[in-house]
Amino acid sequence: MASSDTPWVGVIMGGKSDLEFLRPAIDILTELEIPHEVRIVSAHRTPDWMIEYASTAEARGLSVIIAAAGGAAHLPGMVASKTLLPVLGVPMPTTVLNGFDALLSIVQMPKGVPVGTQAIGKPGAANAALHAASILALQRPELRARLAGWRKARTDEVLRERELS
Amino acid sequence: MASSDTPWVGVIMGGKSDLEFLRPAIDILTELEIPHEVRIVSAHRTPDWMIEYASTAEARGLSVIIAAAGGAAHLPGMVASKTLLPVLGVPMPTTVLNGFDALLSIVQMPKGVPVGTQAIGKPGAANAALHAASILALQRPELRARLAGWRKARTDEVLRERELS
Amino acid sequence: MASSDTPWVGVIMGGKSDLEFLRPAIDILTELEIPHEVRIVSAHRTPDWMIEYASTAEARGLSVIIAAAGGAAHLPGMVASKTLLPVLGVPMPTTVLNGFDALLSIVQMPKGVPVGTQAIGKPGAANAALHAASILALQRPELRARLAGWRKARTDEVLRERELS
Amino acid sequence: MASSDTPWVGVIMGGKSDLEFLRPAIDILTELEIPHEVRIVSAHRTPDWMIEYASTAEARGLSVIIAAAGGAAHLPGMVASKTLLPVLGVPMPTTVLNGFDALLSIVQMPKGVPVGTQAIGKPGAANAALHAASILALQRPELRARLAGWRKARTDEVLRERELS
Amino acid sequence: MASSDTPWVGVIMGGKSDLEFLRPAIDILTELEIPHEVRIVSAHRTPDWMIEYASTAEARGLSVIIAAAGGAAHLPGMVASKTLLPVLGVPMPTTVLNGFDALLSIVQMPKGVPVGTQAIGKPGAANAALHAASILALQRPELRARLAGWRKARTDEVLRERELS
Amino acid sequence: MASSDTPWVGVIMGGKSDLEFLRPAIDILTELEIPHEVRIVSAHRTPDWMIEYASTAEARGLSVIIAAAGGAAHLPGMVASKTLLPVLGVPMPTTVLNGFDALLSIVQMPKGVPVGTQAIGKPGAANAALHAASILALQRPELRARLAGWRKARTDEVLRERELS
Amino acid sequence: MASSDTPWVGVIMGGKSDLEFLRPAIDILTELEIPHEVRIVSAHRTPDWMIEYASTAEARGLSVIIAAAGGAAHLPGMVASKTLLPVLGVPMPTTVLNGFDALLSIVQMPKGVPVGTQAIGKPGAANAALHAASILALQRPELRARLAGWRKARTDEVLRERELS
Amino acid sequence: MASSDTPWVGVIMGGKSDLEFLRPAIDILTELEIPHEVRIVSAHRTPDWMIEYASTAEARGLSVIIAAAGGAAHLPGMVASKTLLPVLGVPMPTTVLNGFDALLSIVQMPKGVPVGTQAIGKPGAANAALHAASILALQRPELRARLAGWRKARTDEVLRERELS
Repeated sequence: MASSDTPWVGVIMGGKSDLEFLRPAIDILTELEIPHEVRIVSAHRTPDWMIEYASTAEARGLSVIIAAAGGAAHLPGMVASKTLLPVLGVPMPTTVLNGFDALLSIVQMPKGVPVGTQAIGKPGAANAALHAASILALQRPELRARLAGWRKARTDEVLRERELS
Repeated sequence: MASSDTPWVGVIMGGKSDLEFLRPAIDILTELEIPHEVRIVSAHRTPDWMIEYASTAEARGLSVIIAAAGGAAHLPGMVASKTLLPVLGVPMPTTVLNGFDALLSIVQMPKGVPVGTQAIGKPGAANAALHAASILALQRPELRARLAGWRKARTDEVLRERELS
Repeated sequence: MASSDTPWVGVIMGGKSDLEFLRPAIDILTELEIPHEVRIVSAHRTPDWMIEYASTAEARGLSVIIAAAGGAAHLPGMVASKTLLPVLGVPMPTTVLNGFDALLSIVQMPKGVPVGTQAIGKPGAANAALHAASILALQRPELRARLAGWRKARTDEVLRERELS
Repeated sequence: MASSDTPWVGVIMGGKSDLEFLRPAIDILTELEIPHEVRIVSAHRTPDWMIEYASTAEARGLSVIIAAAGGAAHLPGMVASKTLLPVLGVPMPTTVLNGFDALLSIVQMPKGVPVGTQAIGKPGAANAALHAASILALQRPELRARLAGWRKARTDEVLRERELS
Repeated sequence: MASSDTPWVGVIMGGKSDLEFLRPAIDILTELEIPHEVRIVSAHRTPDWMIEYASTAEARGLSVIIAAAGGAAHLPGMVASKTLLPVLGVPMPTTVLNGFDALLSIVQMPKGVPVGTQAIGKPGAANAALHAASILALQRPELRARLAGWRKARTDEVLRERELS
Repeated sequence: MASSDTPWVGVIMGGKSDLEFLRPAIDILTELEIPHEVRIVSAHRTPDWMIEYASTAEARGLSVIIAAAGGAAHLPGMVASKTLLPVLGVPMPTTVLNGFDALLSIVQMPKGVPVGTQAIGKPGAANAALHAASILALQRPELRARLAGWRKARTDEVLRERELS
Repeated sequence: MASSDTPWVGVIMGGKSDLEFLRPAIDILTELEIPHEVRIVSAHRTPDWMIEYASTAEARGLSVIIAAAGGAAHLPGMVASKTLLPVLGVPMPTTVLNGFDALLSIVQMPKGVPVGTQAIGKPGAANAALHAASILALQRPELRARLAGWRKARTDEVLRERELS
Repeated sequence: MASSDTPWVGVIMGGKSDLEFLRPAIDILTELEIPHEVRIVSAHRTPDWMIEYASTAEARGLSVIIAAAGGAAHLPGMVASKTLLPVLGVPMPTTVLNGFDALLSIVQMPKGVPVGTQAIGKPGAANAALHAASILALQRPELRARLAGWRKARTDEVLRERELS
């Protein structure tokens, strides 16, 4: 875990090769001081562990789950089927189809089990962390302030350099 | 509004033709007794009203915004750029590309401004409502119970009819 | 079950709306006198029942599982993760993307858990039954003969009508 | 600005990483002696600055706006919603989908707010400048002559080398 | 021609079956009182007439050409190769690929010959007319006023009906 | 052949350049001690040899055929048309379309001749071997045990490293 | 056969449902007085008959083969592998993917065995006949004249109706 | 020209960057001793030269035209509109869409003007030459023999190396 607090966010991925693309999520959670844990949970290789992880997440105190997977990406949707917590999905560009397969596998969930899908790869990973922050900030004014600050810094960065010629 | 309470969820869409596809969202919010409002907010025809809607949503007491749009679907992402509330996007199948254009226009947000994207059309609309419910339920045990009940009813429905031959 | 024998093939689908597209599979299994059962097993609405179905299939005497699903189609891959039996997947054209989403969600399985994917919709359903028959026929000469007969009838049908003008 | 004159064309982009792909636009505007300015204007990170830029463009004397963005590319369409000036959009190949997402996000505008979309990446950037030139040349014979010269040089270049073997 | 004035805009299409999809362009040009002509000009069936049309357009007094075509849509790009006038392209959804083929055939022009591409089908046709209007309005204050009025009416229409529940 | 036994599985490919992508299939068949042969059989360059290979496969004692091909990938489907054995298809990413063309060419078989299609490239090759193993294991308890062991090792590997932070 | 002469063109298709889409080919061959035969030849259901048809085509006096197929469309490429005659392929829109699968299955042939691919469906069927005519006309001045006449009639038809308003 | 004879085949391309991908066509034409010429003919930069090239090709003695282009690839179809000779199109993978845009721009020709489309890039270039050879061989037994030899060499090459293990 990135901090000694009980984690609020679980960041899970189908395999170690996804870690490189998920790094922006972990960095932003850390920067915003959101307690989190990072786990490998494979829908296909460890279905029991996945079911256990999803079923116990709420009782362990998690509030949001960020799930990343590539190809026939079943992790986000299957986790969502076993928890009432909001689940955010990040398609990984880890096959020759560049994450397009993962995007459709994650976003096209049938009625009944939602996954809040983000962009493919690193931008989506960063945004999953920010989306988790926006959810958590609903009840935490100090986190809301940090999130507002993060956003403002990005705005200021553009405004400072906006004149190119 | 579906109830006399201050709305928790704002359901907005780019045009009236989207309403048919958003109906499942409104029905589920009503069924789960989640106060909500339904508005037409067009990113392209009413950009000022969109900016105003997004900027004031949090102060007006909204917790989640569900935004639906078709084609070059800019509404969810632009609303997300003007609020810290979680924004859920629903791609509408209202062009000849069947919502595929709207899906990419909504989900491929750059780092910094997240939209929790749902499936194209009615299933996505229903799931946006359920995702909103899962966010709101984090602090509302009675809503969590209703959401659990909704899920269980769907499970029971399958289990009852599972033997076809 | 289509016959009083212990079923050799389990035909499962994510929802009742898939039945129309799976009908050719059931018809061919019946025609080839392959004992089978037909069940609704939803990966997302009934994950526990899915896990149970997949885990016990082999012990119950099944030899092949045909799994059909649409959209973010997780059923075939998840079932395959919980059994050593061969699993055949049939993408259902039940979303606005016409089964293209289901195809990628089923076929792009990561290394370790295979699904023998068939064509989208009815042709794929028919072929799943024929593929199951080709597997079962490896040890059953009389089924092999029936399968050969089925194939020959199709060939003869073309040959009879091949001269159009 | 590339010249001391009041700019006729505003070249804007969602982020600094787009500059590499927009360079051909800037080069051609310079070569054709079309006064222009180059700015970073992010629809998502600086929505207020974007609205301000678009709203004041006409009064500041601009005649055409060239807007480039990648992924869920909202900049061209949103700028077009706040000005009556012709807006030209250039999809940037800055995500794993190679600009295909940006193309659909820019070109599939709903009825009411047009964006004259160009090809993905550098060819589209060059053509946006040429399209701007063709618009400006309607009232400026000397620019028309320079544009005709630019075109003729390209034609001559092909004709000179047309015989390969 | 919709008026007795010399036409400012030439609306051309590859075949008569495109007329249904181009109707919104013609209606808006008429509504905005922009003199225009409507012609069938087929790149493949009448290449000489196409070359003649494009080559003489400027001398005949046209300022903008709107060209629509489906499938392997070569009309807009070929016309653009024979004139310095701004050419706007509208992809027609007249093949089984629903205009996706026409979109790529029109928008992916190589460096040197720009086509301002609009959305597929009727929305794109309407927007081509509005884009032409925005170009023509640069020098015609009274047209600018009518265009502003058209836009405002659309905005007001949304604002009037924005409260659905 | 990888062993001195009569081969149970025929691994065939359209050309030598496919070998790199098929290596995981060969490695897994070897690891699971499944006797196999590896052949180049080109549908287009050696149609007679292909017909001969497919027609005689069953009589030679093969039980499963794994066929890989890229582009307009006809090998799996044509082999399937000449044998009653189960045929598994592996799309090769050997054209500029990255195997997407091969996927559709293999999976979209018409009713009557099934191919159990696997994922594009190396993951699909590995899975074709595992799918063949699951078919062969139906009658071979010791192979079933090896396959179960292979699967368990993969599960254990994930479980051992599942805690990243 | 459409005439009592030895056929010059063989028109073959994978199944009877393709006939509707091939009709324009047959009509144009008849109109241009090109002797032809029409046959059902299924790559998958009648591979032997296909091989025989292709192998004997040249000796029987055919000069061109037009082959149509849908889905995983193997007929054109396989026929081309067994003859030195020019083979023209027509993708049929007979699956839920609307002929897009057939297009890639036909056009993406590997080096060595060419298929002259035409557009999907009826336009492609008509063009296959015209392409066959252009090949046959190389040595037949009277056919060349008829083909020129056919083309001219189409040109005149456009020119007659070119002024719409 | 590759030989002192009057050329039978014209190989044309939109730009010099296409030459690398067309090399296999030139090599095969040379190997088969088919007189040919190689020219740059740009539909967009040199429309007049293109029209002239196409209009005079037949009179100059050409029998087949191979035309290659990328992006919005108009060269093959436009050349076909100005000649009765058979035209073969080769999509070039020279944009970020990897030739997919060129494929649709070339193959989806409307009824009336056919282009015999080949695969994207080098395999398609090689096959265009072979397709031209199959057309020319209809009247030239010695060329037919060389083509048969070329094909046989490819077959033998596979047969020699077919046993990998």
